[in-house]
Amino acid sequence: MKTVRGCFITCVLAALACAALSTTIQAADPLPSWNDGVAKKSILQFVANVAEKGSPDFVSPADRIAVFDNDGTLWCEQPMYFQFFFTFDRVKALAPQHPEWKEKQPFKAVLENDMKAFQAAGEKGLAEIIMTTHAGMTTEEFEKIVKDWIATAKHPRFNRPFTDLVYQPMLELLTCLRENGFKTYIVSGGGIEFMRPWTEKVYGIPPEQVVGSSIKLKFEMRVDKPVLMRLPAIDFIDDGPGKPVGIQKFIGRRPVSAFGNSDGDLQMLQWTAAGEGTRFMLLVHHTDAEREWAYDRQSLIGRLDKALDEALRRRWTVVDMKKDWNKIFPFQ
Amino acid sequence: MKTVRGCFITCVLAALACAALSTTIQAADPLPSWNDGVAKKSILQFVANVAEKGSPDFVSPADRIAVFDNDGTLWCEQPMYFQFFFTFDRVKALAPQHPEWKEKQPFKAVLENDMKAFQAAGEKGLAEIIMTTHAGMTTEEFEKIVKDWIATAKHPRFNRPFTDLVYQPMLELLTCLRENGFKTYIVSGGGIEFMRPWTEKVYGIPPEQVVGSSIKLKFEMRVDKPVLMRLPAIDFIDDGPGKPVGIQKFIGRRPVSAFGNSDGDLQMLQWTAAGEGTRFMLLVHHTDAEREWAYDRQSLIGRLDKALDEALRRRWTVVDMKKDWNKIFPFQ
Repeated sequence: MKTVRGCFITCVLAALACAALSTTIQAADPLPSWNDGVAKKSILQFVANVAEKGSPDFVSPADRIAVFDNDGTLWCEQPMYFQFFFTFDRVKALAPQHPEWKEKQPFKAVLENDMKAFQAAGEKGLAEIIMTTHAGMTTEEFEKIVKDWIATAKHPRFNRPFTDLVYQPMLELLTCLRENGFKTYIVSGGGIEFMRPWTEKVYGIPPEQVVGSSIKLKFEMRVDKPVLMRLPAIDFIDDGPGKPVGIQKFIGRRPVSAFGNSDGDLQMLQWTAAGEGTRFMLLVHHTDAEREWAYDRQSLIGRLDKALDEALRRRWTVVDMKKDWNKIFPFQ
Repeated sequence: MKTVRGCFITCVLAALACAALSTTIQAADPLPSWNDGVAKKSILQFVANVAEKGSPDFVSPADRIAVFDNDGTLWCEQPMYFQFFFTFDRVKALAPQHPEWKEKQPFKAVLENDMKAFQAAGEKGLAEIIMTTHAGMTTEEFEKIVKDWIATAKHPRFNRPFTDLVYQPMLELLTCLRENGFKTYIVSGGGIEFMRPWTEKVYGIPPEQVVGSSIKLKFEMRVDKPVLMRLPAIDFIDDGPGKPVGIQKFIGRRPVSAFGNSDGDLQMLQWTAAGEGTRFMLLVHHTDAEREWAYDRQSLIGRLDKALDEALRRRWTVVDMKKDWNKIFPFQ
């Protein structure tokens, strides 16, 4: 009888645990940093429709692909893309080996923090400092440089590591999607190898689910040790019309859901929307100058103009950061 | 008491089921098509070492990446790469719209099955027919063409669909690795979009885990419908020194295990071998002219020469197909 009683107790305890768990699941809000409103409701409705067996909108787990822009969608992008801070810090770190930079633009502008002179150097100047700071080393060497920088550099306004400036509501959304069988990808105009060293830790997104812009790589044998050298030549620009191309190249299937915040994400959302069956497209609208920044149609960084018109026309979900998010950053 | 008795019976049944399952697991051979020998033993030893917690060779599940060449490693590649059969069939299917091909090389050679004349056209001729048959349509149109072909075309020697000519021992190996927490990738010189439509069904490898050669894509809006056009320009050649580049681009971490069969896989195996910790590299040596084909150092297709020397020098595992595999194809 002892075995039977022990078993009975175990079973009752298991049943109680199950009941408790089920209550917890029902009670827990997967998006606590989202205020109740259209945006939150539409997300939860989409996830429920897609994940529920028997639902007319059911999507097989293998096809539950969600793609996220990074700059301005998962973390901030003001007063300039964070990769630019990295690039400028690299110029400064390398300057002692390049005394000629003191008189040579666009390096001079960077060393003197002269943003006007830097902007005057235009895209060509930007490309030059990116190639100088991002190429000419192995992939392993570059990864170490990024890891060291991301661990120590701080954002000028918040005086915190850049990886602190991720959006808490979007972290909750990533988790909610993954818990409902989605595979979450980053599809960013930023450098793929600039993101991969820290996206797993910060977003739970592993390197193989990061799509981004890249420079060319070359395999070389150093005696018996193979290395991949980073070459000063553009391989792929994963921005605007490049984003659907990046999705097709790297993922090979069309996402059912896409999240962005600027005109650079428009084609990614269009491509996602054009698939068959249920779809979910969302734009983050930066409307909170106090807690973060407010910018859209006139901004040089993260301009949101055509994509906003398209979102309104096609009834995509637009997040009003000020109204929809009760918390912006995890540290708040 | 009824509840208690019911519960007791359930628990006993569950315990019995568990015991039975555990016996089955212990007894089942995960690689039944592999004869006992060094190759099979070294695979099973590697998998056990990597997957067992507390083992000095333990690898975290996230880092259990295994990369497989396709042609000659997962399916046959004789008398020529299967994608060439596809290409030639496309030339024939398109010929009625191109009467000029009757007199124009290399199309004339293909239409007349004149392999000598085709080979005389060299790489330039090959590139020309690949661009003609693989570009100029949307990604969706190309996917449909591949799906239709793979469902109907037959191999000349075996008179069976090409997807029947996959190696049963390698299918078992893929499953064994996945059951032990590995993520299995294809890293092939073949066209990425030629493989993706069927790799999930045939190998259990989803599109996002297929890396291959590619042509350029372009995003276009057709009125309100976005499409990705396939352009007649090489984007990336995923062969030889291109394989480690492809691995870095698409996966972003170094595999712990790599499987190939030819000199085109040498750099992929070198790159894999050069990582820290335990590694496993394997070459399939085609030694069975009766059941499949026998070829190595002198073969035009799938030449295995330098990679074989390197494998012997570095004690990588070399599969002797005739000796090590008791079954070649699933249909046998």
